[in-house]
Amino acid sequence: MNLTTFTKEQISNMDRRFRATFINSLGGFKSVVLVGTKDPETGSNLAIMSSFFHIGANPALCGLIFRPESEERHTLKNILKTGSYTINHIREEFIAQAHQTSAKYPYDVSEFEVTGLNEFFLDDFQAPFVLESSIRLGVNFRERHDLTINGTVMILGEIVYVHCPSECISGDGFVNLEKAGTITCSGLDSYHNTKLIKRLPYAKP
Amino acid sequence: MNLTTFTKEQISNMDRRFRATFINSLGGFKSVVLVGTKDPETGSNLAIMSSFFHIGANPALCGLIFRPESEERHTLKNILKTGSYTINHIREEFIAQAHQTSAKYPYDVSEFEVTGLNEFFLDDFQAPFVLESSIRLGVNFRERHDLTINGTVMILGEIVYVHCPSECISGDGFVNLEKAGTITCSGLDSYHNTKLIKRLPYAKP
Repeated sequence: MNLTTFTKEQISNMDRRFRATFINSLGGFKSVVLVGTKDPETGSNLAIMSSFFHIGANPALCGLIFRPESEERHTLKNILKTGSYTINHIREEFIAQAHQTSAKYPYDVSEFEVTGLNEFFLDDFQAPFVLESSIRLGVNFRERHDLTINGTVMILGEIVYVHCPSECISGDGFVNLEKAGTITCSGLDSYHNTKLIKRLPYAKP
Repeated sequence: MNLTTFTKEQISNMDRRFRATFINSLGGFKSVVLVGTKDPETGSNLAIMSSFFHIGANPALCGLIFRPESEERHTLKNILKTGSYTINHIREEFIAQAHQTSAKYPYDVSEFEVTGLNEFFLDDFQAPFVLESSIRLGVNFRERHDLTINGTVMILGEIVYVHCPSECISGDGFVNLEKAGTITCSGLDSYHNTKLIKRLPYAKP
């Protein structure tokens, strides 16, 4: 394949939308999840996000990046107001509904209702889980970091609940995401399923 | 599938290695890349990392999370010393070599040499690129964020060079990562290729 080189200047001069899609694509395949929140006054919110990432296992920490001005802000507002949110893996069967949560609905509209995805609650956790997901995390807000370099906001949370199919958990703790039906995404709107190549043993010199 | 629930207490009580693998897996599919750096005195370093993530397109920013004490520290040391690094997507053909870079080699050993992956340089950029990769980014260090919550370090960088196969770039800027051969990973050691389900149009209410 012939590789084309783009310099910083060429990247700066790209059309805004072209650049957004191009640079986002270069991040590689990503985790894509539905983030569930609930404002006690205006109701539930559900948003698809592809900026979810692992930070550490002890305590069990994860991160989310929120863009400066976006629909995701309903989610950010609810997280900061209530201190809790859920992370729900996406399966191929409900990609269209998951993607639809990215539309700009008013704050008081529940994306559960408009997409037909079903919410459910645990007795002692405020945020709604997605019934159709087979891997779900209940997360408590821990820290907010404002990334002034570009106006994004990073939220760090601690995983306090995990729902996971027992048949997908190996003896060493590895979770078979393919068996659970979890998909991945690239760029802003491309959804993919995966096929295992192999697991490799701990590397030694 | 029967879902098992794990509470915060159950997560805390897990065996340390089991928990590390389990919680990491729950992050979903991830970008997995080779990070190239060069200390002018001791030479090149190459490290596989699965904590690479997109932060923004204008400026083109990306993040990496470094664990408190790990081999990745050679990479972090070089980034902080020289201010530049490369991000190289991984193809199925060299997964074994890429994974081998995670072994604990001494600081002055080049993972390029021990794995047989080939490095090359641009005239005006200090860090080494991986010849075998079909998508490569040259990145300049911008910010260090110490995440005191668990001792990890987040590095933010600006993408100043992109090498990408022109035949993989769509008219809207989308990069076909499957065509470029980019793989994904889950957990700490599981490598997967992907199959496109579909791209979805911009969602409207």
